Order: sequence, then C-alpha cells, then structure tokens
Amino acid sequence: MSKKKVVLAYSGGLDTACILKDLLMRGYDVIAYIANVGQQEDFDEIADRARATGASKVFVVDLTPDFVTEFIFPAIAGNAVYENRYLLGTSLARPVIARGQVEVALAEDAHAVAHGATGKGNDQVRFELAFAALAPRLEVIAPWKEPDFLQRFQGRTDLLAFAKQHGIPVEATAEKPYSSDENLMHRSYEAGMLEDPASPPLDDMFKLTRSLEETPDVWTDVTVHFEDAVPVRVEAPSEGVDLTDPVSLFSYLNDIGGMHGIGRIDMVENRFVGIKSRGVYETPGGTILHAALRDLEGIAMDREVLRLRDMLSPRFAEIIYNGFWFSPEMDFIRAAFQQSERLISGRVDLRLFKGNIICRGRESTSSLYDQELSSMDVAGGYDQEDARGFIRINALRLKAHKLILRKTGEE
Amino acid sequence: MSKKKVVLAYSGGLDTACILKDLLMRGYDVIAYIANVGQQEDFDEIADRARATGASKVFVVDLTPDFVTEFIFPAIAGNAVYENRYLLGTSLARPVIARGQVEVALAEDAHAVAHGATGKGNDQVRFELAFAALAPRLEVIAPWKEPDFLQRFQGRTDLLAFAKQHGIPVEATAEKPYSSDENLMHRSYEAGMLEDPASPPLDDMFKLTRSLEETPDVWTDVTVHFEDAVPVRVEAPSEGVDLTDPVSLFSYLNDIGGMHGIGRIDMVENRFVGIKSRGVYETPGGTILHAALRDLEGIAMDREVLRLRDMLSPRFAEIIYNGFWFSPEMDFIRAAFQQSERLISGRVDLRLFKGNIICRGRESTSSLYDQELSSMDVAGGYDQEDARGFIRINALRLKAHKLILRKTGEE
Amino acid sequence: MSKKKVVLAYSGGLDTACILKDLLMRGYDVIAYIANVGQQEDFDEIADRARATGASKVFVVDLTPDFVTEFIFPAIAGNAVYENRYLLGTSLARPVIARGQVEVALAEDAHAVAHGATGKGNDQVRFELAFAALAPRLEVIAPWKEPDFLQRFQGRTDLLAFAKQHGIPVEATAEKPYSSDENLMHRSYEAGMLEDPASPPLDDMFKLTRSLEETPDVWTDVTVHFEDAVPVRVEAPSEGVDLTDPVSLFSYLNDIGGMHGIGRIDMVENRFVGIKSRGVYETPGGTILHAALRDLEGIAMDREVLRLRDMLSPRFAEIIYNGFWFSPEMDFIRAAFQQSERLISGRVDLRLFKGNIICRGRESTSSLYDQELSSMDVAGGYDQEDARGFIRINALRLKAHKLILRKTGEE
Amino acid sequence: MSKKKVVLAYSGGLDTACILKDLLMRGYDVIAYIANVGQQEDFDEIADRARATGASKVFVVDLTPDFVTEFIFPAIAGNAVYENRYLLGTSLARPVIARGQVEVALAEDAHAVAHGATGKGNDQVRFELAFAALAPRLEVIAPWKEPDFLQRFQGRTDLLAFAKQHGIPVEATAEKPYSSDENLMHRSYEAGMLEDPASPPLDDMFKLTRSLEETPDVWTDVTVHFEDAVPVRVEAPSEGVDLTDPVSLFSYLNDIGGMHGIGRIDMVENRFVGIKSRGVYETPGGTILHAALRDLEGIAMDREVLRLRDMLSPRFAEIIYNGFWFSPEMDFIRAAFQQSERLISGRVDLRLFKGNIICRGRESTSSLYDQELSSMDVAGGYDQEDARGFIRINALRLKAHKLILRKTGEE
Repeated sequence: MSKKKVVLAYSGGLDTACILKDLLMRGYDVIAYIANVGQQEDFDEIADRARATGASKVFVVDLTPDFVTEFIFPAIAGNAVYENRYLLGTSLARPVIARGQVEVALAEDAHAVAHGATGKGNDQVRFELAFAALAPRLEVIAPWKEPDFLQRFQGRTDLLAFAKQHGIPVEATAEKPYSSDENLMHRSYEAGMLEDPASPPLDDMFKLTRSLEETPDVWTDVTVHFEDAVPVRVEAPSEGVDLTDPVSLFSYLNDIGGMHGIGRIDMVENRFVGIKSRGVYETPGGTILHAALRDLEGIAMDREVLRLRDMLSPRFAEIIYNGFWFSPEMDFIRAAFQQSERLISGRVDLRLFKGNIICRGRESTSSLYDQELSSMDVAGGYDQEDARGFIRINALRLKAHKLILRKTGEE
Repeated sequence: MSKKKVVLAYSGGLDTACILKDLLMRGYDVIAYIANVGQQEDFDEIADRARATGASKVFVVDLTPDFVTEFIFPAIAGNAVYENRYLLGTSLARPVIARGQVEVALAEDAHAVAHGATGKGNDQVRFELAFAALAPRLEVIAPWKEPDFLQRFQGRTDLLAFAKQHGIPVEATAEKPYSSDENLMHRSYEAGMLEDPASPPLDDMFKLTRSLEETPDVWTDVTVHFEDAVPVRVEAPSEGVDLTDPVSLFSYLNDIGGMHGIGRIDMVENRFVGIKSRGVYETPGGTILHAALRDLEGIAMDREVLRLRDMLSPRFAEIIYNGFWFSPEMDFIRAAFQQSERLISGRVDLRLFKGNIICRGRESTSSLYDQELSSMDVAGGYDQEDARGFIRINALRLKAHKLILRKTGEE
Repeated sequence: MSKKKVVLAYSGGLDTACILKDLLMRGYDVIAYIANVGQQEDFDEIADRARATGASKVFVVDLTPDFVTEFIFPAIAGNAVYENRYLLGTSLARPVIARGQVEVALAEDAHAVAHGATGKGNDQVRFELAFAALAPRLEVIAPWKEPDFLQRFQGRTDLLAFAKQHGIPVEATAEKPYSSDENLMHRSYEAGMLEDPASPPLDDMFKLTRSLEETPDVWTDVTVHFEDAVPVRVEAPSEGVDLTDPVSLFSYLNDIGGMHGIGRIDMVENRFVGIKSRGVYETPGGTILHAALRDLEGIAMDREVLRLRDMLSPRFAEIIYNGFWFSPEMDFIRAAFQQSERLISGRVDLRLFKGNIICRGRESTSSLYDQELSSMDVAGGYDQEDARGFIRINALRLKAHKLILRKTGEE
Repeated sequence: MSKKKVVLAYSGGLDTACILKDLLMRGYDVIAYIANVGQQEDFDEIADRARATGASKVFVVDLTPDFVTEFIFPAIAGNAVYENRYLLGTSLARPVIARGQVEVALAEDAHAVAHGATGKGNDQVRFELAFAALAPRLEVIAPWKEPDFLQRFQGRTDLLAFAKQHGIPVEATAEKPYSSDENLMHRSYEAGMLEDPASPPLDDMFKLTRSLEETPDVWTDVTVHFEDAVPVRVEAPSEGVDLTDPVSLFSYLNDIGGMHGIGRIDMVENRFVGIKSRGVYETPGGTILHAALRDLEGIAMDREVLRLRDMLSPRFAEIIYNGFWFSPEMDFIRAAFQQSERLISGRVDLRLFKGNIICRGRESTSSLYDQELSSMDVAGGYDQEDARGFIRINALRLKAHKLILRKTGEE
C-alpha cells in the first residue's frame, strides 16, 4: 500500500524543516511546497534543503503576479485597512499561498495539506479556512495545535536538538528578538521584545523602509495612473521611471517609498482568536497606493457609493484579516466593490518626502468634478435658491423633534 | 411700533458688513454677534466696526472652551473623519457658533437670525439646521439665497461699491486667490485658484503648519494622556511642557504639530448640496490627537465595540459634515460612542518629526493587553488546542458552500 | 417656429386632465403618456379623453412585464421592506413609469416631461430623480410646485370649474374620502379621512383583499418555485393552477392572496420630504412572495451573506422609497444582492388561510441544509469537542473585559 | 479536605438528572439550580427529585420578572428579530438563567458551574459565554462536550439505563418525536421529526397557540400602552382586562394571542456553531408586542434614528442569538437603543383575529405626526415650492453620474 501524501507549506525555516521530518517519521510521503510571494529568499537553496530533509517532491511556485493583481490591488481598491491602520500585508498573502498549496495537493492527489503556523496566531486560521473553502475534503495537519507535538517541542531548543539529531539542514541564523514575515507587500514584526506595547521597536529592525533621519533631503515626485481603481502605470520622471507591469510598479513603489521612509505602522491589534497582539509593519508601496486611490476617489466616486463602500470597508478588512478571503461574504462584498470601482480612472500626482505622501493634484476622465459640471450649466445647473428648499425640507424633522421635546418637558 | 430685531453672525469681513447695512436698510434692528472660536482676530476692532456700521448691540462671545470640549474632543473620540481624510474643523465650529447665536437671539428676544454664508456651500446648511433644531420658531435670513440680493451683489466689486457708498468700514486687505476659514481646530482653504484639482496649492498659503522643508531636524517627543477618550494632559518634557487645560493643550499641539509640518490635507470632497469641492486643510493638533487616540484604542477598546464604532464612524462624520450636530440621530450615535469611550484611558508616546506622528509606546490602566491577560492564566487561559475547534467550526459553512457550488455545477 | 413638445404622464384623472389643458394653453405641444403598470383601467377610454382634451399624440405603454421582472422581483429578492412594513408598491412603479416616459420623450424629441404629482409627496421626487438620472438635460414641468398654478387651483372645486369651463372630459366619479393609487403590485390609500392615525380605515375601502371575516373557511395550498431568487413557477394543485409567466403568476398570487385576506398594512411612515404620513396598503401577491423567499433563504443562503444583505436591506428599501432607483448607490447594492441571489433556488410550500401565510416546507437543490451536510460526514464533520475550543476562544475577550471592569473598579 | 462544589443547572429532565449523578460520582458536591423562567413545571417536585438524586442543596429561583423586564422587553424594544423571523425566546432566557446560576455559585463559593446543553447547539454557547462574562474565573463543566461522557451516553437508552442503575427518579414521559423548550416568552421545537425541512410540523405539537381552524370567530380588541418603548399597560375592555404588571400583561398577551393562533413560526435558521437547523416556535405575546411597538414607532420615532436602529437591529439580534448578551458590544448597542426609546410612548389599538394582529389606530403624546406639525404652521411650515430645490439638489449628483457614463461611453 502506498503512503499517504501530504503537501507541506515549507519555508525553509527551523519549524517547517522539523515538521517535514516529523511527517516523514509519521509515515507520510511529504511534498514540499515553497511559495514565492515576493519575499527575499534563495528559493533554490530552500528547495535543496527540503529535498535533503526528505521531501519526495519540491514545488517552488511564483505567486507574485497573482498576489499583486488578485489580492493586493483589490484590497487597496476596497480601502481595506484593519482597525484603522494595518494594510493587511500578511493576511493577503495567506490565501494566495493556500490556494497554490491546494492546487499542488489536488494535482498530486494528496490526502492532506500541512502548515507550520502557530496555534495562537491568525495565520493558522487563514490557511485552514482557505483549505476548507477550496478543498473541503482535504485533511489538514497542523502540528502546532497537536498536544503531542506541542509537548515534544516546547521551544526553539527542542527544535534545534531535533534538527541536529536528524541531520536536518538548518539556516545558521541567530535567533532574532522578534519574529518577522515578509512578502512583496510588506514586512511584519511581532512577538519577542515587541510584546511590551510601551516600548518602541529598535530602529535597526526595519528592512524595507529607511528611518526618517536617513531619508533623502530631496523629494521624489511620482504619478500613479489607475483604471477602474487598478494601478496601471507609475511614472517618476525625475528617476526616468515609467512602469506598467503590476509587479514592477509595485516593487518600484516599495523601493522609492522605502527610501523616503513611508509606511511604517506600530499598533496593537485584535486577533481573530480573541487576543490582542502588538504588530509592527512596513508597507511602503501599499501605503502610497492607498493614499493615491483615496485621493482619486475624491473626484471620481459618487458620494453615496463612497458612503456605502466606506461603511463596508471595515468589514471587508475584517474578512481578509480573519482569513475568509474565499467565502460567500467576500464574494458579496467584492461584487459591490467592483461595481464601485468602475470608472475610478485617472492620475494622481504625489510627492514622497520624509515619510509623507503629499497629494498635489489629480485628474480623471471620469471626474465628477469638472468644469461643465461644477458650473452646472446642465439643465438649469445649481441655483442658490434651490438651497433654500433643500435646507427647509431637511430641517422639518429637526423642528418637529425639538417641538416634541419641549412639549413633553424633556428639556 | 418697535423694529424687528435680527441677530447677525458678523465676522467683520466685507460680506457680513454689507449684510449688516442691508438689514438696517430693510428696517431691522441689527444685533451683531461675533463668535470667537479661536481664530486669530482683533475682536475689539471687529466689534467697533460693527457698531460703526450701525449695529444696535454687539456681542463678542468666547466659545473656544466649549468648542474644544463639547465639539472637537467628542469628534476625535468618535473617529470622525469625513471621506477618509477631512477632520471636520469647519463643520465642528458651525454648531457651536449657531448655538451661541441662538442664545443671544433668545436672550434679546429677537425675531430672526441672519448669516452671510453662501448659497452654494455647506455652512449655510450647518447654520440653518442648527437654528431649526435649537429654535424652530426663529426666522432665518440668508441673503445669499435671496434672488434680489444675489442680483444686486454679483461679485466683490458690487460689495465694495456698496460699502463705499454707505461708508461701511472695511478692512483694507487685498483679495486672496482663495477663501479661507480659521478656528482653533484648523484653517481651511477653498475656491479661487484651488478650484483646479490638478494643481497643488501655493506653499505660502499655509499659516498653521510649516512646509516640510522648513521643519526642524530634531523631533519632539510628546505624551498625550486620555481619560475616557478625552485628552486630559499633554507632556513634552524636552520643551518643559505639561498642560491639562483643554484649550491650552490643544493650542500647544497646534503649535508643536504645526512646527513639525503635521496635518495638511488636500482633497476633493462631496458637499451636502450635491457638488464636489476641493478643500485644503491644516489641522495640526487634531491630527495628533486622532493618531494618539486610535493608538490607545488598540490596547484599550474591545474588538467588537471597535468594529461597531468604526462602522458608524463614517455616518458620524457625515452627520457632522452635513450640519446635523443637533439632531436625534446624533444623540443616538453619541450615546453608543460615549459607552465605547469609557475606560479608553492611558498614555500614548508620540514622536513628531517632519510631518510624521510616530507612535512609540502606549500604556493603559484599562489595557485589555496586559501580562495577566496575554499569558491568559485566567480560567485555563489560551489553549492552542482550542484553536482547532474554533477553526473547524468557523470552516463548516465554507465547506458546505463549496460543496453546494460543486454539486450545482457552479464551478 | 414649431411649438415645444412636452410629454405628460397622463392618468385620465381630474388633475392631469387639467394640467394637459393648462400646458396647451401655455403653448406646448402636449403628448399624453399613459402607463399601464397593471392598474384596472380602460386605457382606450383614457386615451380618447386625452385626445379629446387636446393631446397631439397619445402613447399607451404596457409596462407590466417590465414592472414585474425588473422592479417587483428584484425588490422582493432584496428584502425591500420600508420601515419594517411597507413593501413599496408605489415606489417601485414610479421608476418604470418614468423610464417609459423618458423613452417617449427622447423618441419624440420632446423638450420636457411633466407630471401631476403633488408637491408634498414622495412621487414628485421619484419621478424627477428618475428623469434626472435618465435624461439630465430634459426639462421637468411640475405644476403642483409652481406658485401660480398652486394659486389658481386651490382645491378640487377649482379643478372642476376649470374642466367645465374648458370642456375637459372628466370621469364622473364622486370624490373619495381618501386618495388611492393602484398597480399590479398593490393598492395604496392615504390622505382624507386616513389622516387621523388613531382611526382605522373603513372596511369597504379595500379592493384587492377581502376582509378576514369574508375569507373562505378552507385554505389554499400554494407552492412557489424560485430560481436565483426569482419566482419562476407557482402551483396550486387544488385549483388546477400551474403558472410560469411572471405577470400571470404574480396576478394569480394577488387573486388567491386577496381572497384569503393577505397583505393589508396600516402604518405611519416617514416621507423623504420630511413629514410623517399615514398609509394603508394592500399587497397580496407581494406579501406572499416575500414570505416564501425569506423562507427559502433559510436553507439556501449563507449565514454571513444573509447578515450583510439584511444590514443593507433597510438602505435598499430607503433608496427605492426615496426615488433613487436609477442611481449609482442602487447599482452598488444591486451588484452585491445579485451575487447573494445566486443559487437561492428551490420550492416553498405555503398554506394561505385567513390572512396568514404558513410555510409548511421547503426544498432546495442548493440547500446548505441537507443530509450530507447536517450529519457533516465531510472532512471529519461536526465534532462536539470542537465546540469547546470555539466557545473558549469566543469567551476570551469577554473574560478580559470583565477583569478590566473589576480591576478599574467600574463595577 | 472538602469536596469541590459545582452548581448544576438542573431541569429535572433525564439528561441533567444523569449529569447530577455523574458529577456526584466524580466526587463533586453538587448544588442543583432550578431556574423558573415561566415554563409550566412543578418546581417543588423537580426540587425533590434533585435532592433524591443527591444534590446537597437545591435552589429554585423565580427569574420571571427579571426575564420580562430586563430581557424580553429590551429585545422587543430593539426590534430583535433573528434572520427576519425568530423572536429569540430561548436566546433571551439563557442569559437570565446563567446570571442566576452564577449568583448562586458565587454565594455558595462554588468552584464550577455545569450545564446539560448539547455540544451541537446554541445553548451551550449562550451559557458558557455568559459564565465567562460574569465570572471569568469559574470553571465550566459541560459533559456533552466531554469525549468520555459522549462515549458512555450515546443515546437516550444509555441515559435510561444509567438512571435505572443508580435509582435516579425520572419523569415517566414517553419520548417525544422532537425536543422542545419552554419559557414565558415562547415554546420552541426542533430535532427529531422536524429535521426534515420539507415536512410541516404536526398540528398537535403546539401548546401555546391554537391552530387557526380552532380559533374563535370573534376577534378581541386589545390596547397596548408603552412608555419609553416599554409596555406599561394592556387593556382588553371586552374581556374586562386592564393590566399593568409586566409579567401579568405579558402572560395575558400570551393567552389571548395563543387563543387567536398568533405567533407560530417555522423556519430554517443559522446556528452560531455553523450549521443550519430547523426550528419551530410559538411566541404569541412577543409577536403582539413587536407589532404594536413597530406601529407606535411609526408616529413617535424620528426617521433617521429609525434608519440607524434598523441597520443595527440584525446585529442586535445576532448578539442575543449567539449568546453575547453580557458583552461590551451589547452595552454599546443598548446605549444607542435606549436613547432611541425615549419618548416612544403612547397607545396602539390592535385587533387579534385568526392569527392576525391588525393595527387599527395609534396615539402618542410625543407623536411627531400631529396636527400642529403636519399642517406645519411652525416657522413657515411646509412649502410646496421648497420641494423644487430639495429635489433639484438631490438630483445634481445623479445628473453628473449620467453625464459621465455618457461621456466615457459606458452606456
């Protein structure tokens, strides 16, 4: 009888290396799945290590283009900001990784998928809900929730000992005083020394963004073009930059934004699993695009559509954060949002300087603010006398309310 | 028979000076009402001019303390941000001005109140809805909506001619290429050369905030203390600052924020009267307090309360922007928000630098993030195995949904 | 020079007959537009009267099929219930009538459209907002808001006198002690003796529904089939009924519902123009479909989609009521709702009896409630132990909240 | 060393009797807590059985008045209707029962609370979340989620055998083909033969309401008086009824409503634990009060307050259904709702007949619909010409939107 196959999301780190080995020892045929979502890694080397540890097959999948166009851009278009600040860089990467993993699992006729996310965090939820939504019959192996595994591996020391014992090749990095995660959209930091919310992070922790003191004293002017709320072109004439490829333009915004110290966030957030957690994030390109698109919406989006969209945006962000990207509620919201994104087209001129994104101008072929309309010559246009009736009718219920309060002696 | 009395909101500018005269010529006894909401003005001189133009009485009312504690602070506490950016500095000043005017009108047994706001803007709505809500039987005189008045005064030239003709004392200021409004919370700019949304404002237009190039190369560290979401103390040890008076601490944050170039916004917004308008704002102190309080909410506010609050915040901002401060819907929302503001107490450490507000730490006696709770020793605490059931139950409906899609051939 | 053409929404009643004549006297070429939205009328006779009064052309347009499929069914699918009770029969008819009128106006190259709706009501708003949205450059003539017209016609007597004077053929009906409006979806009653909200309507006022005392003592069992939330078939085996045509099945539900006394509503509602109004409605078929579809949603709609939909439904109803059917906010909501309506397919068995609609069973090929799923054998199924973790994680923040309240002495 | 004390919610049924015995066998000192929430039971007899089974103490607590005034009335006031139909009778009883149980546990210095709710249902969640919120450090024993207990008791037969073996006195009732729960607000039915959603319930299952065929042929007219949205008096002159005590008036409405066949609901609903469930309910008095209060809101509640309230009502119902009565989000919503309930005072005249609740009139001292206001003589009143400006300003953005669609060739 053939072994059961499991597809393991393998990062090459200590945890997933030990899990790979452990799954082999449990008798599984383990396929290593290595997702490239834009993190800076030597994927060949990671693949080699997976093979060396015993993976029967190794898949390195470049998800970066999908990540940008199917996850990052829609999130920005929908004003997805979790708890007023977090731009959801990690949350958005999880579903694209999980989808890739499920695709490998189905193609390889695997029986299970496995991941190394901790049992205290959000990522386990995001992975497992995506698995459930995409392949409800696949089994999920999550060692960090298994009593036995938790018992055996109570800390980094246990993992290192296990790795040594089994000759697992491990990257010889010193333990950092925090944990971090990176992808094309951002780099996140949590745990360790960051657990004290009263203390600032160390300045040398940051990788994608310069400290403000080290940013240039000259700004960079950048123009972002959108079509239907999707960034389609980024120009920075002073840099000789003119990009239209989604990954390229996003990467450029990361670089230039990072150089100008844009997009750092330090916050305490609410995890789906009911605990508060301190997170620090660097999201240079995403921060720029959020600012640019919100500005363009100013001239191109209808007021009442904006109201409805903004009422739903916190829920949209929550859906993403909690791991429900693949869900009927997401389809519901996305249908409305896509409707609202039609004709949000045009350009926004931005100045990047010392951590600031300064909107300096915007133009849209579908602007609801233009000469013809603001002068309102159409069909009689805006008549100041109209305001009288408008106000008086809006005032009616306020008057009635006041008179009732008076009549009933409530004031 | 005695003349009918009207209380005119008088700014000392050309418009309200001419309106004052015009009302006199219509046979009214005109009382000039001059509201101090923190704008930089010589109120004595304005009062003198009102008398010289013919006002029978002049009231100069200092509304600054009320403005800060009853309007600015609650708006910040409720995360009132209009269309994702505007902090509502003008919108918040209108109801406190209108309330003061109504109080004068009732005390003086006046028959009407009058204002000089244009018939195209938001302020007319805010004034008149407040009048309706507070004194439904008072008549409202709004010359800029009267056909006859609009006919006679088609531009600044007509007003100047009228002023000259009637010997109305007018401040000899050159016309600015934009219109602006100032109060303790902010300074706003619109119209004129700002009407082209594709062009940036001139740098010398700004008054409360320095351009980033002119900000100091050394940051200022400021700590803001809140009790029940209200700022109660601001410390800046390096400046020898420790303030607890609401107006003083807010003014200090304006000064220090302005020095560091904090709080400029340039946007196209949707007016209540149905047209889009370009507005530029400087709100240094308000911007700082918004950032600080959002950060404190991170550790001190319950997750689901935050969700509900944030879903209602855009509506709260809209209510303020549209002029419904005094309304039953505002009372409804404020009741919930006040409940949510209980125990949002503690301190936030901020670094102000080059337009940035950097949260560096926060502490709260009512923190929902603290050692006891995050280690979760209470009643068994957080158990990683719990996450398994949590996720599996959350996944149930996603699985069912997927299976139905498959069964019905929808994918 | 040729006369300006105006297309008048002509009902054949006294008001629009006088308006037709008045427009002729103002020098217009008047085209009478008679919309058939399912009201019981002799349209030929109305057309003859329009011609006799002087209409240069008369269009009788049967909008009934469009009304049912494009307006009534989507409203029911979206759970459009205004202020918890009103099913929006009149509100839904206005946009289809206005759209037909605009089509005639554009085809006839008319300069204006005119209507006879009163200046105090909702219908004027609905007509004129639809005109604005569909043909922004068409002029709108609304005599009941014109000072001169209002002055000349202060009551029914003035209209009768004008009709007599100009030989306008008028239906010789006695004035009713209320005003009413009818279309395929409902019959509405307001004004006159209904203005006292403390008194019940007269029993003989109702036309579409029997009084409960007069309903049969035997019930009728009806089965309604839906596809994607659209009624596609109605069966009543005991009556030999099996209908699939939208107008036919809706008409049948009106008949059978009316016979069983279903769908009367008596309420005080809030008009868009700021006043409260008492309305009485009969909506037999619509009431049945609402009940049936809500029931089907129970088995076929995802929980979180239902939550989002139900949060937006009151806004959806408000959009319809206020006359914004043709608006970007409606497009936004409809996009989401249409997504939620996919796979809401199946049958609902209803018993109609004495004003009651009793759901007795439902079945759906896309049921999320079925044997496979409720026994939950898939992927491990429902495990009672999972509930432990689920509850414990949900309880975490409640515990933290309580402990903080205790710690801070708040209780 | 003394035994650990546990307070068990004891119903006297087979399940909790066996659990009581089982807890004793585990070495606990078991205190039986019997909550009277209005169900028809012989509480003395139940208490005797608890003692006979081995409870060291028995508390029978009459929670009925609290249940009515602190739970039922606020739920009705807040329009709490779960998934458009369920009035939450069971959900509302759980928190009052849990609160009473916690009070006993704290007074008795118990170490744990226990309940016999199944691991598949909502009630376990409601009980345990209430325990967590009220007494975070109390241990919770829930045998129906324990693997060992589930293993031992796989069905009713196992329970009966255990009872027989240990001489546990059990009520000699035949097993019903469904399970049911009763309290003052309602009676619910689920499971067993009701699990097939395609089949109607048996008519003889119902206990609180007559079948429509058996209802009287004469209606009963009832008047309900509210103060601040709380029912304060019920009159039925034809019955000689005039009640003001909360429990009495609610009980009367149950009786008279049940006699007229009011308040049956048959639906498929979404449980918090992720599965759909078929539930059948009888809620005669609650249904009447919901109808009456919604009607009164028509004349007494401000339009925009009603909008906000109705947007939050589904969330309010969800909070109750899911067991978060004692939660900060509930406090948030209740604060707003209580504000909205002020001055919702007056009387509603209802006719109860054949399952129908017919509103025939309403009157309120705080009516926003009254002669003074509807004729709108105040401050100029309603002017039909005002509607022109009102509509034109509302139309502005619709026109702009249409022109942009045209200009961009989108239609």
